[in-house]
Amino acid sequence: PEGLVSSAEELNAAIENAKPGDVITLANGTYSDFEIKLTGTGTSEQPIKLVAQEKGKVFLEGQSNLRISGEYIHVEGLVFRNGFTPTSEVISFRTSKEDLCNNCRITECVIDNYNPSERFESDYWVALYGKHNRFDHNYLTGKRNQGVVLAVRLATEGSRENFHRIDHNFFGHRAVLGSNGGETLRIGTSHYCESNSNTVVESNYFYKCNGEVEIISNKSGQNVFKGNTFFESTGTLTIRHGNEVTIENNFFFGNGVANTGGIRIINAKQTVVNNYLEQLRGYRFRSALTVMNGVPNSPLNRYVQVTDSKAENNVLIDCDHVQLGVGNDEERSAKPERSSISNNVFYRKSGGKLFSAFDDMSGITFAGNIVNPGLEPFQQDGFVSKEIEFEALDSGVKIPLNTPAGDSIRAGIELMATPENTGVTWYPRVQDEQFFGGGKVIEVKAGENTLWEAARNSAPGDIIRLTEAGEYLQTKSVVLTHPLTFEAAQGLTEKPVLTFQKTSLFNIENGGGLTLKGVRVDGKECRDKPLNAVIQTSRYSMINNYKLLIEDCDFADLDINHSFNVLRVAKNTMADSIVLRNSRFENISGSVLALDRETDDIGIYNAQNVVVDNCLFDDIGQEAILVHRGGRDESTLGPMVSITNSTFDEIGGDKRNGTGSSVRLHGTQVVTINDCIFDDSKPLQLHLVVGEPVVNIMNSVFSGGTTIEDNGEPYNTSGLQLNLTEPIT
Amino acid sequence: PEGLVSSAEELNAAIENAKPGDVITLANGTYSDFEIKLTGTGTSEQPIKLVAQEKGKVFLEGQSNLRISGEYIHVEGLVFRNGFTPTSEVISFRTSKEDLCNNCRITECVIDNYNPSERFESDYWVALYGKHNRFDHNYLTGKRNQGVVLAVRLATEGSRENFHRIDHNFFGHRAVLGSNGGETLRIGTSHYCESNSNTVVESNYFYKCNGEVEIISNKSGQNVFKGNTFFESTGTLTIRHGNEVTIENNFFFGNGVANTGGIRIINAKQTVVNNYLEQLRGYRFRSALTVMNGVPNSPLNRYVQVTDSKAENNVLIDCDHVQLGVGNDEERSAKPERSSISNNVFYRKSGGKLFSAFDDMSGITFAGNIVNPGLEPFQQDGFVSKEIEFEALDSGVKIPLNTPAGDSIRAGIELMATPENTGVTWYPRVQDEQFFGGGKVIEVKAGENTLWEAARNSAPGDIIRLTEAGEYLQTKSVVLTHPLTFEAAQGLTEKPVLTFQKTSLFNIENGGGLTLKGVRVDGKECRDKPLNAVIQTSRYSMINNYKLLIEDCDFADLDINHSFNVLRVAKNTMADSIVLRNSRFENISGSVLALDRETDDIGIYNAQNVVVDNCLFDDIGQEAILVHRGGRDESTLGPMVSITNSTFDEIGGDKRNGTGSSVRLHGTQVVTINDCIFDDSKPLQLHLVVGEPVVNIMNSVFSGGTTIEDNGEPYNTSGLQLNLTEPIT
Ligand SMILES: [Ca+2]
Ligand SMILES: [Ca+2]
Repeated sequence: PEGLVSSAEELNAAIENAKPGDVITLANGTYSDFEIKLTGTGTSEQPIKLVAQEKGKVFLEGQSNLRISGEYIHVEGLVFRNGFTPTSEVISFRTSKEDLCNNCRITECVIDNYNPSERFESDYWVALYGKHNRFDHNYLTGKRNQGVVLAVRLATEGSRENFHRIDHNFFGHRAVLGSNGGETLRIGTSHYCESNSNTVVESNYFYKCNGEVEIISNKSGQNVFKGNTFFESTGTLTIRHGNEVTIENNFFFGNGVANTGGIRIINAKQTVVNNYLEQLRGYRFRSALTVMNGVPNSPLNRYVQVTDSKAENNVLIDCDHVQLGVGNDEERSAKPERSSISNNVFYRKSGGKLFSAFDDMSGITFAGNIVNPGLEPFQQDGFVSKEIEFEALDSGVKIPLNTPAGDSIRAGIELMATPENTGVTWYPRVQDEQFFGGGKVIEVKAGENTLWEAARNSAPGDIIRLTEAGEYLQTKSVVLTHPLTFEAAQGLTEKPVLTFQKTSLFNIENGGGLTLKGVRVDGKECRDKPLNAVIQTSRYSMINNYKLLIEDCDFADLDINHSFNVLRVAKNTMADSIVLRNSRFENISGSVLALDRETDDIGIYNAQNVVVDNCLFDDIGQEAILVHRGGRDESTLGPMVSITNSTFDEIGGDKRNGTGSSVRLHGTQVVTINDCIFDDSKPLQLHLVVGEPVVNIMNSVFSGGTTIEDNGEPYNTSGLQLNLTEPIT
Repeated sequence: PEGLVSSAEELNAAIENAKPGDVITLANGTYSDFEIKLTGTGTSEQPIKLVAQEKGKVFLEGQSNLRISGEYIHVEGLVFRNGFTPTSEVISFRTSKEDLCNNCRITECVIDNYNPSERFESDYWVALYGKHNRFDHNYLTGKRNQGVVLAVRLATEGSRENFHRIDHNFFGHRAVLGSNGGETLRIGTSHYCESNSNTVVESNYFYKCNGEVEIISNKSGQNVFKGNTFFESTGTLTIRHGNEVTIENNFFFGNGVANTGGIRIINAKQTVVNNYLEQLRGYRFRSALTVMNGVPNSPLNRYVQVTDSKAENNVLIDCDHVQLGVGNDEERSAKPERSSISNNVFYRKSGGKLFSAFDDMSGITFAGNIVNPGLEPFQQDGFVSKEIEFEALDSGVKIPLNTPAGDSIRAGIELMATPENTGVTWYPRVQDEQFFGGGKVIEVKAGENTLWEAARNSAPGDIIRLTEAGEYLQTKSVVLTHPLTFEAAQGLTEKPVLTFQKTSLFNIENGGGLTLKGVRVDGKECRDKPLNAVIQTSRYSMINNYKLLIEDCDFADLDINHSFNVLRVAKNTMADSIVLRNSRFENISGSVLALDRETDDIGIYNAQNVVVDNCLFDDIGQEAILVHRGGRDESTLGPMVSITNSTFDEIGGDKRNGTGSSVRLHGTQVVTINDCIFDDSKPLQLHLVVGEPVVNIMNSVFSGGTTIEDNGEPYNTSGLQLNLTEPIT
């Protein structure tokens, strides 16, 4: 093919000599540690092109990246995988601070799980600089470290009012990051948010983009978002900064997934029209439609008051929340002014209360909005209640008939992003989530290292079945590099007993996960030294989130020395979920769950969901459960903690208990404690900060001197019995 | 050769069928993940042998180990390297709890830097169980993780009164661990310290065994240590537990190295005779000769009173300290009884004070001891002062002529371990320390990533010379995997300016080290996010200690976001030394040195030596210098901190300063602060714990509200000017 090159030397020579109309063809193959710096000047008719010899057969791996600058450059068909960028960006539309791109296009490229091993070594996958560039039909999936997937940067004059076009990309699954910096798109930064970007984001598909509360963070003016589809993404399209932004004809499908959100409005002169939002479950900042309160005379990095904005002709079907004046507090006291909410359709089959207001909303004019009978309108004025009929389109969109909103949605359907009209056709869509089960069953007997051996020979999703009672002594740590289930066979007379001699019994390494069912773990064989643990995560940063499920298990006599934990995690590791169910934890010198390693207090934490149900904790030296999220960041949905039907008895008495609590929840966002007993224990400590955490402590008994300590922030209690001498028997 | 095997299958088959007199020969080659479990019954005349085909050509790598049990088994010539044991021991004299070894021998084996990557994943290299086993002529070097090199274990009856013989081994360099568990030998544990072990440790060479304060920890009775040589090892042979121990004819050569120690006596009926100790610099627990105070009716794990013991015919030449009644405090109030110190020669050319007593020593009888004129005797009774003449032997030993002690030493010379009569002849002695310089000079110019490129093409000890002023922008972190020096060329008109865009400019990875001279580091190009750092260690555990030297440098405007440090270290990393000299640190939002990541508070810490001389610290947001060693462990010599001729101005005012100090030294063992100015700053905090730290604060000025905060423990001050309004100008 034309201009075929297959090495850095050949490529650089070709770039050096490139004239308008030249095509440089990168030969099929895998290129490692390959940094492409493509500078040139093409013309509108005769761009300089860099293309893959065959799409899907040219791979950039290791520490590779791509930087382009100049005019009319076109790059097509590259795949980045198995590595990460050595610089701060994988694809950059500049080659230095001064050398930017204009009128360039990157199309049909793939970036697949191209992450460093360090979660908080941040980078961008794509950074747009310059003007009039296009980034289209690319497939970006599996970003797991900190930093947005695609950023439009406005740092210099040459990058503002850029009229970039970002279209028909498929943004694949982005796992929960557990920190700020998990956005998929960011247009601008708060430093330059008074500038206009004039970027068009059109017909992109966002598939489970769950990194943090902002799927898209708009931080500049005059951008347009249209025709984008948001599929089960737990966040919102947020106009965080910048004015005169248009959000039209976008499609949000929450499918009832918790924390799925819609559109959040801040700042002035915003236009939010013709959007379709269905089955979104988010509340507060993540509501289907959120209008924020602002800070009077807000500094740039805070919240500018909503003024002169409109939300019109939007259709909301079976969503949970529309919230207005959100964030109202002493600082954010400026309510929306000169704005309107009109001609929207608010439908919820189950009726009830959809709207909340946290301040006086007289600055918003309401007109022509329709609600279905049974759904409580926000107010009388501007709302009519009537039966609404729908036409279900093939695309899954339901058009409310005989409404202006319905007509507007229908008119915009042709823009709608779908998995088929976005990304590339020639690269497989990657399934990025971790699942247990689905593999083969490996039967093991009692004895030395039988679990270790089985794990070593396992494949993802395998089930390792302990077929007899008796002792399973592990002299080596069982290493989990993929999800595995260890379970007792049905019908055993006693639980199999797991003992171990290394610092830990199970090591969850990056990519690993553990389900443990029906076994007893005993610490009697452990080495006489502090800091043993039944389960520990990799002591390195884990770029993949993991899952841990413990069911019908007993943990006993983990006390050969101090600070013996059931689970010990490392800094920069993140559990999607940790579930303890129907299990007993007795005579343990350390903690059961110590999720407290993010001590930098910048909003990072170690687990998204912690669920404890029907468990007994008895005689635990340090905190039974410790969850810590420090700092004042509001970018995350978690940690979320549920503790139900459980008993805590004699917890936390060890002198090494640093917090002096039995259970400590610091900075958690959602807490449910229901039907629990806390007896003869150190206090339950609630340290509630930022994000208006939703905390309910219900139907529980506190006895034998066990108290609740809080930091003065509000939370809900009901049905508590406090200051009992003995728990009710 | 006889019984040649070259795979696990062949080996196991041979073991299965082994009869007395059989020789199994492991073929030359490298075996990975090779676990040998050798069980058999030989006879005294006809042992079962496992030998290398050729010594020095059979390597066990990856996760390999060796376990033996049975009778009369003989293993010879194996090399363990490039890996670590998958279990808790590399070589074990048992195959299970019940299956022990008796009358077995392991000889001429090598274990070379066979460590896991985790410093505190502890293991033993050799564990002796059973009885009448011999471990001789082996070469063990470079153990860097926690856990003793060789342990004699007495956990069951079958391992007590074992009459093992450990002889003619060469124990190579053991780097400072920075924690308990850095011993080279341990005989017994406190659990079974009332048992007799009857182990003989004879003619072994200990080369720079610097892991912790105990080179050998004796924890059982009736052991004999003779003919061993301790070369520049910073610790002692300690009779920690157990009675009736004999220490005779051993040779200690300190060569004036700081913290080199001799013999420490605890417990009853100890015999310390005919030992030669020269140029040892240790004090307190690490004195040339230490006799401890005990705890009345001591529990097993504390300090048993010294009774019925003798130190006789020992020769101490040019040592710094002999200390008696050491450790006397409220708990350790039982002084030595019915003991004697007699016929020893105490010589110090410089004279002066050698002896200290911390309690009444009337329970010790002194007789016939000789001191040279000018050396102050401990008391009049039992000491004579006279000129002493020496005969210098080829071995380096100086025999004091016409003294009983001198005659005893001379009689024992034939036992003396030397590099030549210990270890193996066929494996190179490894040099394990890190050195700067000695490599080639690489000249670099200003520009993008020139340092990164030079580092990538460097070899250990290379010097990267910045040949012009101007900006050296690094868009990638410069990765250091071996010691490198970056220095400005002589005669530049301005300092070269280093700027960077990643989270850190320099990453010291395992094996790496950094010297930085004559440059300016500016934070202006850094990303606007918290937790940037100029230098960071590996974020993983580092098994190798590192060195950092900064000289004649400026660090300025590291303030683009909060918590920007000069040095950020990770948990489980250890600096041998960090030196800041003739440098300026100005306008920094985080800390300069934050050595505070060991938060488990079990006696672990991040740097052995911290030296700051002639530096200016101005406008630092968090602590300028933070050193943390938590817990109450007494096993370590460090951290040691010296801060001289330096100025601290406006330090610590950032609200994120967790300790509220300008300089905080927590649990440090040696502190010198001299000729410093602390102005307009948060307090200098001293949190002194365990080990009787030696702390001197001298000739310094505290002004502008800057105070010293301490925790009530004693320390020395002199020449301080406190509570000044302004520093003297
Ligand atoms: Ca964000
Ligand atoms: Ca020790």
